[in-house]
Amino acid sequence: MSFFNLNADLAEGYGPWEMGDDAGLLTIINSANVACGFHAGDYNIMGNVIQMAELNGVSIGAHPGFYDLHGFGRRAFALPHDEIERLIAYQVGATVAMGRLYGARVTHVKPHGALNNLACADLGLSKAIARAVSAVDQNLILLAPALSELVTAGRAVGLTVAEEFFADRAYMPDGQLAPRSRPDAMIHDSEKSLAQCLRIFLDAEVKTLDGSIIKMEAQSVCVHGDGPTALATAKYVRDGLMKAGLKSCTLSEMFAS
Amino acid sequence: MSFFNLNADLAEGYGPWEMGDDAGLLTIINSANVACGFHAGDYNIMGNVIQMAELNGVSIGAHPGFYDLHGFGRRAFALPHDEIERLIAYQVGATVAMGRLYGARVTHVKPHGALNNLACADLGLSKAIARAVSAVDQNLILLAPALSELVTAGRAVGLTVAEEFFADRAYMPDGQLAPRSRPDAMIHDSEKSLAQCLRIFLDAEVKTLDGSIIKMEAQSVCVHGDGPTALATAKYVRDGLMKAGLKSCTLSEMFAS
Amino acid sequence: MSFFNLNADLAEGYGPWEMGDDAGLLTIINSANVACGFHAGDYNIMGNVIQMAELNGVSIGAHPGFYDLHGFGRRAFALPHDEIERLIAYQVGATVAMGRLYGARVTHVKPHGALNNLACADLGLSKAIARAVSAVDQNLILLAPALSELVTAGRAVGLTVAEEFFADRAYMPDGQLAPRSRPDAMIHDSEKSLAQCLRIFLDAEVKTLDGSIIKMEAQSVCVHGDGPTALATAKYVRDGLMKAGLKSCTLSEMFAS
Amino acid sequence: MSFFNLNADLAEGYGPWEMGDDAGLLTIINSANVACGFHAGDYNIMGNVIQMAELNGVSIGAHPGFYDLHGFGRRAFALPHDEIERLIAYQVGATVAMGRLYGARVTHVKPHGALNNLACADLGLSKAIARAVSAVDQNLILLAPALSELVTAGRAVGLTVAEEFFADRAYMPDGQLAPRSRPDAMIHDSEKSLAQCLRIFLDAEVKTLDGSIIKMEAQSVCVHGDGPTALATAKYVRDGLMKAGLKSCTLSEMFAS
Repeated sequence: MSFFNLNADLAEGYGPWEMGDDAGLLTIINSANVACGFHAGDYNIMGNVIQMAELNGVSIGAHPGFYDLHGFGRRAFALPHDEIERLIAYQVGATVAMGRLYGARVTHVKPHGALNNLACADLGLSKAIARAVSAVDQNLILLAPALSELVTAGRAVGLTVAEEFFADRAYMPDGQLAPRSRPDAMIHDSEKSLAQCLRIFLDAEVKTLDGSIIKMEAQSVCVHGDGPTALATAKYVRDGLMKAGLKSCTLSEMFAS
Repeated sequence: MSFFNLNADLAEGYGPWEMGDDAGLLTIINSANVACGFHAGDYNIMGNVIQMAELNGVSIGAHPGFYDLHGFGRRAFALPHDEIERLIAYQVGATVAMGRLYGARVTHVKPHGALNNLACADLGLSKAIARAVSAVDQNLILLAPALSELVTAGRAVGLTVAEEFFADRAYMPDGQLAPRSRPDAMIHDSEKSLAQCLRIFLDAEVKTLDGSIIKMEAQSVCVHGDGPTALATAKYVRDGLMKAGLKSCTLSEMFAS
Repeated sequence: MSFFNLNADLAEGYGPWEMGDDAGLLTIINSANVACGFHAGDYNIMGNVIQMAELNGVSIGAHPGFYDLHGFGRRAFALPHDEIERLIAYQVGATVAMGRLYGARVTHVKPHGALNNLACADLGLSKAIARAVSAVDQNLILLAPALSELVTAGRAVGLTVAEEFFADRAYMPDGQLAPRSRPDAMIHDSEKSLAQCLRIFLDAEVKTLDGSIIKMEAQSVCVHGDGPTALATAKYVRDGLMKAGLKSCTLSEMFAS
Repeated sequence: MSFFNLNADLAEGYGPWEMGDDAGLLTIINSANVACGFHAGDYNIMGNVIQMAELNGVSIGAHPGFYDLHGFGRRAFALPHDEIERLIAYQVGATVAMGRLYGARVTHVKPHGALNNLACADLGLSKAIARAVSAVDQNLILLAPALSELVTAGRAVGLTVAEEFFADRAYMPDGQLAPRSRPDAMIHDSEKSLAQCLRIFLDAEVKTLDGSIIKMEAQSVCVHGDGPTALATAKYVRDGLMKAGLKSCTLSEMFAS
């Protein structure tokens, strides 16, 4: 039997501000990437989401980003690798401890936004991230974009790596995400999103923007919780995958054996 | 043989700004309270101080404060107890993880500023702090002002509690710190500071501002690193205590047996 | 002919986060209170709202609050009066300059949240606010809760003061807002909101929570833009006032003659 | 008779943190560039410095930087030009208003750090800065590095531009600052600093790092207030210039006729 994991970014509000439908997503996904307070999320929002995730049987990951609340971690900072290690360790550790407050284990880490994007193409940066994750807890799973340098780096330091793709994003012939500047970067049709998910999970391949088919193995698919149709799409994808005979599981379950 | 511990607040800079002489203090003290990024300290400063502390054989503690960089954690916030738990867990967890980056263990927690002051007189608040510390790691030592509610709360949740006093602060007849608004709140004379330390460590009593002598047991004394004479005073006190036959140790060593 | 002014708090997002329906409100209200970056709002959001307000013929005010993004300016800080002056001047000046970028004049100031609440009952604090507004620009109108110390303070320094009330809040027999902790603090029924507006604008009196009728003169009514029915209520109130023969105007027009 | 202006960056502390010797510098310089709260400075520090500047007859300028407290405005952000306009207008307006609180006029603007560096080589960015300054107040003097695009942009929008150089920095043959990465970027010798000042102010030329002499007109020289010898150097330069028959003046006086 085949398994899949559905992950999403949560706890992305701050203070009085909300973002996305965390409660809704937690009824659909298997794994929550919890913003850690640097680009979004604060200790209250983190605490609330972790409690809800635990109640819903959703596994919890830290989602560290650049220290840039105003830019939501979407702006690139060129930081030395030892600063990257500290940036990651701080946020992962904070999230691990928040979990302990509620008897919940943090089982994975997924970098956010510009930090994630930069890491995908920069092995040195990816290694700094992986070293920090490994230093905090060797058993943490690194959730990394399929075919990225982050996958390589995670495995190099001995971390379990889960590869992910995006349900609603198109891919380039080299396996990288199509940049958002392209008009065809987003997949707006739920059926096409599901088709991409099925092809990757069942056949380990993806049809890229130039029509070519490339190999892409992944264990997890990332869905979104903001926008009017996000939740419906997430549900549609999950239901479609299950109808096709795949079974959903948390990241810990995926790599338990 | 009697033991004493010398602690100080470190890593209280932020970004481009420095505060206190961390490198100097680390040659004198036994235990460092590391600011965790909420009232001061950032991941870079924390990392630097933790590395230096480790090299100097100084034991490391988290020094969590209110989320108030502009006010340096010196302003009181009336937060619900579950928010207090989150505030503490987040900062302690971040510091623990920073330590792991450098092979260093965080062995104690000491609340900062207004949070500490409020907790001293508020058992409910103190219990929230203690619960959070205990949830993150049962083995953490809570470093709390002697004769405060924080001592009671820490012991109530099963934490090891180290009691501290200030070398340069005068005490009221009820054992609480003299408020800074009083002209006689500070002890400016190194010799008087040392005398207070000796009396507390050797005789478990302190002479208060009205001349009365009260019982005060403590294992640790807090010294400061800012101001032109701070380091000299810290050194004077330490040397005086050692000359009196007391032996300095880290908090972990203090409670090891 | 009688006039009324409809005001609302706008630009209360921050970075990636939105709050309220600014575009919707700008088609209904006469005067916008623009958050100035300290409790909400940033230079981008301020710029966007100011541009839109100018296009809609809505007059612009600065809406300064405590320096507390995480608490949204709803937490009370006990600041010295000279710090209050600086807090206000900084934010008002920033907003005035943002207006100049778009050829728009800032014509009023209304304190936000906890700062406003504290000022209502504290003449000294209100005077500090009024002094700062007056120092920045003597021609600024101070928009203050009816029957508050802020009204007194504004007039004492020679500012034009516009008195406001809330369409959806009940009042105590002493003319102060019913605290939100009371179950009857909010008026949820649009018709009752309109009735309160008509009674104040036409008869200069308000029915308070104990049934007594007190005198309340006001030139402006504050409506809200968040919540599912907020915009509909605002529109209902405005239309009802106009049907009753009142004419809406900006704060500058109100005090032009 | 020839005139010169001595300027320095002030108010660069934040909350509890201090930077540089503002009080000392104010006894030496003619014009103060006041940090506006985005990269450093807060309303309290700004208020204190503006009051002291006014007492010392030092003219006041706004010193706006990127919105990056943690990076002290030294990190480059690639912002759209309309965001740059808002960034500048907000900070300049805040500073102007702070001045009014103390009866002081803000008479110039000098961009800070990475924003200034980027602008020097980017005419589009410089024009955005100049447009914003001009929109806030046409009479503000733009203080810009000699031979930079910022000079061109300021004049293009009709602003009075004062050209500055650094007393303690070496220049490249193209008239740009030697990058700090070069070992010879800094001039550590007070006498050499003074020689550079005299050559520029008296002969309108500078000796660059490859030995060539290029034309450089400037009306102002920037000195620093941090570091153990900064103040002494500033004083040495000022005294040397006066001994050579030059007369010091504020930027307003420089361009008064």
